[in-house]
Amino acid sequence: LFDPLKPALPRSYAQTELGHGSNLRKLETTATFIQETDEFELHSPTLTSLKWWPGALARSSNYAAVFAHLILPDGKDYGMHAFLTQIRDGNHDPMPGIEVGDIGALAVPSILFFFLLQFNSIDNGYLRLTRVRIPRSQMMQRFAKVSRDGVYSKSINDKLTYATMVSVRADIVTNSSNILGKAVTIAVRYSAVRSQGNNPSGEGEYQILDYTKQQHTLMTSLGLTYALHYTGKYMREMFEANLRNIMNGGDTSMMEDVHAVSSGLKAVCSQMVLESIELARQACGGHGYSHLSGLPWLYEMYAQYPTVEGENTILHLQTGPILLRQLARACTNPSSLAPHIAYLADAPALLSSHCPVQHEDDWLDPMVQLRTLQHRDVRQMNVLADDMEATRRVASHKQLDIKNQHMLEIIQISKSHCQTTIVYTFHHALPTIQRDHPQLYPALKRLSDLHTLHTIQTNLADFLIDGYVDAQQAAMLPKLVKRLVKEARQDAVGYVDAFGFSDNSLGSALGRYDGNVYEALYKWTKLGEEIVKDGGGGVKRDYREVLQEIREVGKRETRKAKL
Amino acid sequence: LFDPLKPALPRSYAQTELGHGSNLRKLETTATFIQETDEFELHSPTLTSLKWWPGALARSSNYAAVFAHLILPDGKDYGMHAFLTQIRDGNHDPMPGIEVGDIGALAVPSILFFFLLQFNSIDNGYLRLTRVRIPRSQMMQRFAKVSRDGVYSKSINDKLTYATMVSVRADIVTNSSNILGKAVTIAVRYSAVRSQGNNPSGEGEYQILDYTKQQHTLMTSLGLTYALHYTGKYMREMFEANLRNIMNGGDTSMMEDVHAVSSGLKAVCSQMVLESIELARQACGGHGYSHLSGLPWLYEMYAQYPTVEGENTILHLQTGPILLRQLARACTNPSSLAPHIAYLADAPALLSSHCPVQHEDDWLDPMVQLRTLQHRDVRQMNVLADDMEATRRVASHKQLDIKNQHMLEIIQISKSHCQTTIVYTFHHALPTIQRDHPQLYPALKRLSDLHTLHTIQTNLADFLIDGYVDAQQAAMLPKLVKRLVKEARQDAVGYVDAFGFSDNSLGSALGRYDGNVYEALYKWTKLGEEIVKDGGGGVKRDYREVLQEIREVGKRETRKAKL
Ligand SMILES: Cc1cc2nc3c(=O)[nH]c(=O)nc-3n(C[C@H](O)[C@H](O)[C@H](O)COP(=O)(O)OP(=O)(O)OC[C@H]3O[C@@H](n4cnc5c(N)ncnc54)[C@H](O)[C@@H]3O)c2cc1C
Ligand SMILES: Cc1cc2nc3c(=O)[nH]c(=O)nc-3n(C[C@H](O)[C@H](O)[C@H](O)COP(=O)(O)OP(=O)(O)OC[C@H]3O[C@@H](n4cnc5c(N)ncnc54)[C@H](O)[C@@H]3O)c2cc1C
Repeated sequence: LFDPLKPALPRSYAQTELGHGSNLRKLETTATFIQETDEFELHSPTLTSLKWWPGALARSSNYAAVFAHLILPDGKDYGMHAFLTQIRDGNHDPMPGIEVGDIGALAVPSILFFFLLQFNSIDNGYLRLTRVRIPRSQMMQRFAKVSRDGVYSKSINDKLTYATMVSVRADIVTNSSNILGKAVTIAVRYSAVRSQGNNPSGEGEYQILDYTKQQHTLMTSLGLTYALHYTGKYMREMFEANLRNIMNGGDTSMMEDVHAVSSGLKAVCSQMVLESIELARQACGGHGYSHLSGLPWLYEMYAQYPTVEGENTILHLQTGPILLRQLARACTNPSSLAPHIAYLADAPALLSSHCPVQHEDDWLDPMVQLRTLQHRDVRQMNVLADDMEATRRVASHKQLDIKNQHMLEIIQISKSHCQTTIVYTFHHALPTIQRDHPQLYPALKRLSDLHTLHTIQTNLADFLIDGYVDAQQAAMLPKLVKRLVKEARQDAVGYVDAFGFSDNSLGSALGRYDGNVYEALYKWTKLGEEIVKDGGGGVKRDYREVLQEIREVGKRETRKAKL
Repeated sequence: LFDPLKPALPRSYAQTELGHGSNLRKLETTATFIQETDEFELHSPTLTSLKWWPGALARSSNYAAVFAHLILPDGKDYGMHAFLTQIRDGNHDPMPGIEVGDIGALAVPSILFFFLLQFNSIDNGYLRLTRVRIPRSQMMQRFAKVSRDGVYSKSINDKLTYATMVSVRADIVTNSSNILGKAVTIAVRYSAVRSQGNNPSGEGEYQILDYTKQQHTLMTSLGLTYALHYTGKYMREMFEANLRNIMNGGDTSMMEDVHAVSSGLKAVCSQMVLESIELARQACGGHGYSHLSGLPWLYEMYAQYPTVEGENTILHLQTGPILLRQLARACTNPSSLAPHIAYLADAPALLSSHCPVQHEDDWLDPMVQLRTLQHRDVRQMNVLADDMEATRRVASHKQLDIKNQHMLEIIQISKSHCQTTIVYTFHHALPTIQRDHPQLYPALKRLSDLHTLHTIQTNLADFLIDGYVDAQQAAMLPKLVKRLVKEARQDAVGYVDAFGFSDNSLGSALGRYDGNVYEALYKWTKLGEEIVKDGGGGVKRDYREVLQEIREVGKRETRKAKL
């Protein structure tokens, strides 16, 4: 009857509680082993121990992986483990001892009155367990198990959890590139259709994509989109290499690098992508504020990413200290460093060098670009290591307090290193592109240059402060970036068409392939009105039907674009 | 019967069309004078000429001020004028020739299915006019009129429109400070309640407000909130002085300054506030993503401000060139400059000087702070003026194209000058505070210092690039900012309590004065569920009733805060 491996409906991952998220050790839910009945008793002792946020819990799931402190008959707490727990019965009613509900419900009626909006994603719920019994077999035994007589044993290296986390984070990076790709596609296509302002020649108007500010915003976001695509790919390869190492003889030497870079990259990338979606939305003017543009939805959906799968600040605070350890290790054991971080071994040379740029085009040399970023990174790491050492010496601070005092700088070295890694992974992909797709290479090299030089330009103080880049070299950057933006603008529509998003997947009246923006805005608006009228102020027609209709319209009209 | 001065319902301001917003000259709606009947005929000739976005149009208004090209019997186009037009009759049905509807309707059913979210604010609509006749008297005659025989005359100086725009923009700045104040209140109060992570002493946990990163985020936003409060005040005073000048003898000499600064400030402030709301939201972790925090709503509502009341990019592009003219004027007629921009007259001295800071505390001198910012401004303006002149000389570009080539730098000088103006207005307010509220002065001086030095720090490259600030002086800034943040943290709860927002006005489970965050989250969640259950999947109870209930709960629980 009960098959834990084949739940009929999506299974919730119930870890976070009302009172605690990031700090797993402070979660309060307990799972006490009851030897008499060979069961675990799951319990939520307080209000703050209620599970809060798990996806699919509000309505869909009938099973949840519940994380709880394992308490054994010896009275000891063996830390957090997962327990597969049935939360709803065959009629989809809560099981005995279970209180389960929807944390997004309050938003529903409010919106009917055009009142509030909600960021909540689909189906997030809460869960209270009151002395709920489950068979011992339902402890999820991937990492540890408990015997019939209550004895604990570890099953396999829990470093594997790390490996899985990296996989999830690689997916987030790749996925972020997709999401930003959608936003940029919408904004670029619309900017090629929208006219506003007078043309200098006096005839007609400017396409807004011909304004250099609009170009700058959208082309730099395009550069980021492509960069993150290659970063995601690199992370996935690293993940697989690491997994192979662990599987073939338990070599965990790559683990720390992989953990550090995947944490930091998830944080840097989710923050940059969120900001870039918002810029794309604003670049569409008034129509970008309408949900018919598809952009508000992208923003609101994506706005969870700086928080979920590792809160960004906390991730940087994990990456930073590892980088300092890697810097120390670089002297003694340089060959142990993964390729993207091998530059730490070169720290002395990087520190004593000066940016060699003499002419504008020297900035287009990938080595010059990368070494500029790497110089900054090792300098910042060095300064921080010294500062922390000094704090340690003068005061009798505890470790955590020293970390707290240097938190901003720890976060900074993580951010810097991840910016460099994104550039590295783009560079890393280029030779293969040059070999396999020589006709595409110039367009991609241009975006790589644009992304890299824009990164240097927006962090310019980091390079000026110790004179690595001088004023003359710095003054070349805005000119060069303008040139690259202008060149990229020529291929703008091609760059976004290459993502291959269908009109359906964009769900945007502005981002249509055929460029019939105004017709679509008007048609969708009338459609919405009809639905409301049908329902006499409420809603009678099923939205799915409407969605189908929109899709059909979309399909019919996906013919050759005007652009 | 018809009294245009007393419309029963809110009146819409119908200017923007589907195809054009910022570029008013390209709006397509026409108002043709029909001499035979002494009427205007309003007409929407194309799909793109439909009025789109006006507030209150979707459902509420029965009259709209419709902007249209005035066409007189001589066949000439006299440009945009406003015409008061009845759009709905006594039964609230559309008048003949009127098609009117809701541009947000499609979002309603979607949300019922937890599907989409919408940025649309309340009641935005569209309007098509098909040869609609209105009496001549309904032309809004504040600025111009048309006689019985079709002759056009201007009524008063249309510079007054400018004056009104400034007033609106001053309100936006003040209002932005309020909105950000709400976001910061919520985040600070929650951060004083939320515990996460281990305390270095090993006992209990950190309040998250004790993490220096959290402090840095929230205290710098607090500084901005206070700064913008004083900026709004300064702008309102400037607006009134300008109006007095115009009324008393038509002195319009302040006009250009006032226009420039109000445009740029609206743009800078709306962008910074939007970003800061998002940071406050993220600082609340997972609960910040829930609408129960009140933060998503603030973000989504505020997200219109970079676009409405003058699109930000376009505003900067208006301010920038005026600044260049003012710089030129500063040599010949320095006394004509408003106080916040009088420094342009000091350009030569500013350009040739060097930051005098020797010890960390020298950075706390308001004059040192201000001159650092002002030096940057005049340097950037000078460079831009020279560059534009060079472009003009070598090429035979038209004016608009030269502007397009230098767009990023034009925007930059506007942004820089406005950052300086915000600092100036905060400084400007301090002596009065010191005199009238000496006990408050230290707390406000601290926020002014924090806001100013944080501004310099986040734009550090601007000051390093020409050596005005050297590496040693720059290295003092992070230390000083940390110190100020730490001091501000001590008063954090006091700073936000001083805004005096009631629990009702915050609408947030996290921002409660009494600190009972978890109880509120749970209670509101249960309330939401009940409503959904009541309606059998739909919604039966009126939301206003629910809102009332929430408010009652809120009121009862607004007792002395725990914080
Ligand atoms: C849409 C959505 C879906 C979710 N789905 C699930 C799910 O399916 N299952 C599940 O179990 N959970 C889920 N969650 C919960 C999510 O995992 C947590 O919200 C996330 O881990 C962040 O934890 P928190 O909310 O406790 O934030 P907090 O840790 O409370 O963070 C609040 C603030 O404190 C700061 N802070 C906290 N600790 C430190 C520290 N040590 N040093 C410095 N600063 C610190 C943070 O930087 C942040 O600014 C979901 C959340 C959301 C928003
Ligand atoms: C919530 C909301 C409420 C509104 N309420 C009303 C209302 O009550 N009444 C009303 O009449 N209107 C209203 N509007 C419309 C609003 O006034 C316009 O959306 C706004 O003026 C911007 O114009 P636009 O949409 O045409 O943007 P666009 O001008 O099309 O802007 C699109 C992009 O092009 C760029 N761009 C445009 N021109 C230039 C240029 N010359 N140089 C460089 N870049 C340029 C912009 O920077 C932007 O990135 C409302 C809009 C919203 C979102």
